[in-house]
Amino acid sequence: MGNHKALTSAVAAIASIATLGALAAPAFAVDAANGTYSPNGKSVAELAKHGAAQRIAAIGNKSAKNVVLFIGDGMGDSEITIARDYLKGANGHFDGLDAVGQPGALDDVQAGTGQYTTFSLGDGSKDSAVGKDAAGKLVANPNPGKLTPVTDSSASGSAWATGTKTYNNAVDVDIYGNPQLNLFELAKAAGKATGNVSTAEIQDATPAVLESHSTERACYGPQGKTDGTSNNASKQCLANQLKENGGIGSISEQLLDTRADVTIGGGSKYFRQTVQGGEYKGKTVWEQAKDMGFQTVENDPAAMNALQYKDGQPVLALMSDGNMPTKFNPSKATAKDPAKDANPTVCTPNDAWLGNRGASLKDMTKKALDLLNANPNGQKNGFLLQVEGASIDKQDHAANACGQIGETDDFDQAIAYAIKNVDLTNTLVIVTADHAHTSQVLNAQPAYALSTVLKSADGNNMVVSYGTAQAASTDAEGGYNGGDMEHTGTQLRIAASGPGAQRVIGLTDQTDNFYTIAGALGLATSPDEQNALSKDGTVKVARTQAGKYVANVDGFNGDALLSYELKDKNGAVVSKSDSSTPLSGVRVKPAQTTSIALDKMSEGAEYTLTVTGRQSGKVATVAIQAPAAGSADKKPGADKNGVIASGKVPNDSAVSGPLGATGTAVMAIAIAAVMLVAIAMLIKAARNARNN
Amino acid sequence: MGNHKALTSAVAAIASIATLGALAAPAFAVDAANGTYSPNGKSVAELAKHGAAQRIAAIGNKSAKNVVLFIGDGMGDSEITIARDYLKGANGHFDGLDAVGQPGALDDVQAGTGQYTTFSLGDGSKDSAVGKDAAGKLVANPNPGKLTPVTDSSASGSAWATGTKTYNNAVDVDIYGNPQLNLFELAKAAGKATGNVSTAEIQDATPAVLESHSTERACYGPQGKTDGTSNNASKQCLANQLKENGGIGSISEQLLDTRADVTIGGGSKYFRQTVQGGEYKGKTVWEQAKDMGFQTVENDPAAMNALQYKDGQPVLALMSDGNMPTKFNPSKATAKDPAKDANPTVCTPNDAWLGNRGASLKDMTKKALDLLNANPNGQKNGFLLQVEGASIDKQDHAANACGQIGETDDFDQAIAYAIKNVDLTNTLVIVTADHAHTSQVLNAQPAYALSTVLKSADGNNMVVSYGTAQAASTDAEGGYNGGDMEHTGTQLRIAASGPGAQRVIGLTDQTDNFYTIAGALGLATSPDEQNALSKDGTVKVARTQAGKYVANVDGFNGDALLSYELKDKNGAVVSKSDSSTPLSGVRVKPAQTTSIALDKMSEGAEYTLTVTGRQSGKVATVAIQAPAAGSADKKPGADKNGVIASGKVPNDSAVSGPLGATGTAVMAIAIAAVMLVAIAMLIKAARNARNN
Repeated sequence: MGNHKALTSAVAAIASIATLGALAAPAFAVDAANGTYSPNGKSVAELAKHGAAQRIAAIGNKSAKNVVLFIGDGMGDSEITIARDYLKGANGHFDGLDAVGQPGALDDVQAGTGQYTTFSLGDGSKDSAVGKDAAGKLVANPNPGKLTPVTDSSASGSAWATGTKTYNNAVDVDIYGNPQLNLFELAKAAGKATGNVSTAEIQDATPAVLESHSTERACYGPQGKTDGTSNNASKQCLANQLKENGGIGSISEQLLDTRADVTIGGGSKYFRQTVQGGEYKGKTVWEQAKDMGFQTVENDPAAMNALQYKDGQPVLALMSDGNMPTKFNPSKATAKDPAKDANPTVCTPNDAWLGNRGASLKDMTKKALDLLNANPNGQKNGFLLQVEGASIDKQDHAANACGQIGETDDFDQAIAYAIKNVDLTNTLVIVTADHAHTSQVLNAQPAYALSTVLKSADGNNMVVSYGTAQAASTDAEGGYNGGDMEHTGTQLRIAASGPGAQRVIGLTDQTDNFYTIAGALGLATSPDEQNALSKDGTVKVARTQAGKYVANVDGFNGDALLSYELKDKNGAVVSKSDSSTPLSGVRVKPAQTTSIALDKMSEGAEYTLTVTGRQSGKVATVAIQAPAAGSADKKPGADKNGVIASGKVPNDSAVSGPLGATGTAVMAIAIAAVMLVAIAMLIKAARNARNN
Repeated sequence: MGNHKALTSAVAAIASIATLGALAAPAFAVDAANGTYSPNGKSVAELAKHGAAQRIAAIGNKSAKNVVLFIGDGMGDSEITIARDYLKGANGHFDGLDAVGQPGALDDVQAGTGQYTTFSLGDGSKDSAVGKDAAGKLVANPNPGKLTPVTDSSASGSAWATGTKTYNNAVDVDIYGNPQLNLFELAKAAGKATGNVSTAEIQDATPAVLESHSTERACYGPQGKTDGTSNNASKQCLANQLKENGGIGSISEQLLDTRADVTIGGGSKYFRQTVQGGEYKGKTVWEQAKDMGFQTVENDPAAMNALQYKDGQPVLALMSDGNMPTKFNPSKATAKDPAKDANPTVCTPNDAWLGNRGASLKDMTKKALDLLNANPNGQKNGFLLQVEGASIDKQDHAANACGQIGETDDFDQAIAYAIKNVDLTNTLVIVTADHAHTSQVLNAQPAYALSTVLKSADGNNMVVSYGTAQAASTDAEGGYNGGDMEHTGTQLRIAASGPGAQRVIGLTDQTDNFYTIAGALGLATSPDEQNALSKDGTVKVARTQAGKYVANVDGFNGDALLSYELKDKNGAVVSKSDSSTPLSGVRVKPAQTTSIALDKMSEGAEYTLTVTGRQSGKVATVAIQAPAAGSADKKPGADKNGVIASGKVPNDSAVSGPLGATGTAVMAIAIAAVMLVAIAMLIKAARNARNN
């Protein structure tokens, strides 16, 4: 018995010390010494660093005022070819998809095409170095995992939106859960206008990577990815990320904090969920949006089309409860059957498609471009617009050939509209996908895979096959019945036209796309440049009414999160943010004022407030003398805005982040020390067992 | 009864008239009015024209002295990614494959990457507008077929080697069976040195398109694609193409006529077949090669490595009986099984691989480059070298992940050698594939497709899946057992470095690659330019011994075939070539003297010989006065070489081909007329039936 007990206590010691260590650290770091090494010499831990997977770091950018990024979700070369064969004929061409990147096709602008790699990190499709304990709280997983050959849309999106490789399921966090600044945050810091358009739920991975940071991609709303009738947020969100637990909130809530100038997509039902903590607690997310000054449209294409630019009132127009209906009715992939050859499928239009009511992807792209062009920031500083054709992927998953073809058509027409309506001498247009997918085009039906025989635009039969689902689910008719065909890891196409398009030529990695876009727009790309965006951080403490104080934080543009600590004159902590995990704390509103309510302050007392940028490590300290009780409401001090004290990041503030490489090494040594202690305890236990 | 008889005779009338019409035509033409139309407005018949499927005809070339074309057979983006993941890690890169096309990777040369389409014509995988009757003779198929979404290697190779889209199974003939001049014929006409290297049988489609014209890709040797122990040439070759039937001969025989400066590959067993007609009748093809002055090597890597350039003695080195052994031992794809995840496959080296004995693809590429660089033509005029990594495709067909990966490795190392050993300022290196293939990379085993779980260079599992075979053939162990996984129609990668590399950027078609290569080398590309290569055609008739005459033909460089007709002074035909089909007649030896034995000439008599270029339509006429009987042997006339008469293509010779567009229209009208007659007969038969 003795040795069992000793073993158990040793294991518990390791676990508790490891957890304590992780929770105590201001940023999350995990020992990565057991990461595997590729022949390139980079371990998982090395590849997990910002920018580490770039293939063309040495290739320069050309400046562009605007960037329009088109992401065909799951649109590998196979999906493009299938749609072209069916819609245009094998010799045909797409007016949008095939024009971008084509030398000579678009006036005299630079054009380029290439391939890029899309692998992710972590040991499996939903795995990561970040784990949750039974209570849904973030805990360290000492194994950072391996390389993952096939990415999902969230690791993929995180890669092109932040330049950092991460695990499948991550939204703009690295493999340790640390937020990575995304293109919208950086574009807003540079004064650019921003737009985000998708045919998917706007919380889906691709649009989400421009709106939020989340360790779990399913953390759609305050209650998770549900219709709001039940609360399973605890299953779908890191508990510490939820507002009610001191976190930065769900993807929908962060979307509002990010405050893109234009957001158009689906997923309105998640905005009907109820906010669970913070300033808007008890309201729906729609109500929060309206309170925050958004122009909102819920499931109304005509109202979307009628939207106009209004100063300070960004657009949030969601056209459908969930993902938007597809352009074509679904086809069903079935087992091999000669009868299919004699009666090839012809795709039919879907009456429910919102393009029939003015909300095709082209319509939404037109509205976004109109709004961005009407925006003074857009006019002056340019804009970054992302447009996703989302359901190419979703219908490919469903082995729905007609579905994926119709969505590719819709996507192509949005691109064709854009390239005719932007100035390609100052706008870089990129067309790519986030990962390859399952569908293949064949001359004859396969025996293994399911397939659909289509009658192409050329009048011939073409076979689209689907064979990658992990579980077979053939129905009574031999048809595909709700399983899930899988992404593939194939390198895929990237095409660009406009200034700097040369950067997509050759073999690049998905993370290079971050540098291509950020570099063209002149955004901060390196960690040092990004940290420097917080060098002018300021904190102004105002008394909003008797006994009520708020800290208004500006200029921490190099940070996604802040932490704060309020101490009294004796150095005792009065209140502070939760910073136990990377997503606990105060969400920075990019290029806006982030307000922190300072509770528990007494009239007339002295305090010291420190505000720390969680990514930049920049600290602003404010010495506060609270006005005496009975001072005039809201304006107790000298400042007409009620500001009673202020502070800023000192000029000589260190540039590096809170932990950095040194911190990681320290953590590694600490964990190694824990291991040594544990081994010693195990040896002792074994000796005790022998002696007993 | 009466109406049945009338119907039968009507059908017979159509058949006989159609056949007669076809046989009477100097080139083969089929009505294409029922070709389907793509939205691009091009029918099959239009797309079947030389150059009609180009996508970037307006994009110019830069001059290159040399071109090295690397074809990874079946090496789609998926096959590249799978090999990279396994061999180098997902973040790794290939020294050859990933360096070509990469800006900045290779000194300061131009680099480009893009995608191209590969569809073929005809109604199915082996279909064409060319048919064979029961006797194996060519007959017209009045339906030119439709577009074929997925190409085979021969239609693909014909496209990049000639610029003409054709049917699967065709080797450098169009959909009507008409030969199309290939890059080697055109390069030789321009004085370039030529080299052809493959790990496949040298008669396989990819090398074949630089050596031959054949309506059937399996027409490997005089006895077809056999080991020589049985003669099934009649099944595998158009009967009229065989030497014994007055045709231009098999692929092996035409390879010797083409006389590339360097040919290295497999397939030696077909050279052990016996020639069935013409000058070398009764000899093996190896013996013919030696008689024709080739340096030959049979299944001996050491001898291949010892070869040196010798003036007038081209190299023919075949390393193995069939396809060359693969670098890695085979893996077997099997049905889903969790045990595979726990014990991932690690590929093992194949002891039989000839790289162990000095005949890796790199070794063969090195030898080819050394020989071409030592060749005075190569030094002065440059060279065109094709190197094929053939068994990526063959192992993909066999669902053999290790096999295809090892072949990709071998291919990559050949490319890496080449780019370090050519002058990229004057050499255009192109790396591409001929079609995409079946293998896909997944994170988890699929339920439908067969798969192999590999342990990648990153130390993680990767799943390679295969699901496209038309017939399932799972063995007792659930393994793949000899079926045939299929090509896919996906657009695929083309990469280039060197002068003119920009031409691969964007979306191109496989036929654009012909123009990229031919344009860089300054070869004749348009039909008019190609026809003009025969404008200086000459014919010299020599008396080689008493009663024996030969016509030596030079300068018909715009032709693949010649026909001749010898008439006596009364205009009666004494002898002539068979020109009943496009491959019947005299094979032109490109940039060499083509000799035609003139039989049945009587001493002292007068004759008129006409020699016609079958592609160019150029005609040279020679008036012959045969020396009187008893003249001195071999030199009966004034010329010391025995030349007794000569003629040449007149200066004002028409440029257009024998039929051209007008001829096709005439044929169409003729066939339409036949149809009208047939319909009239059917109506009459029906009336008779009613009256009876």
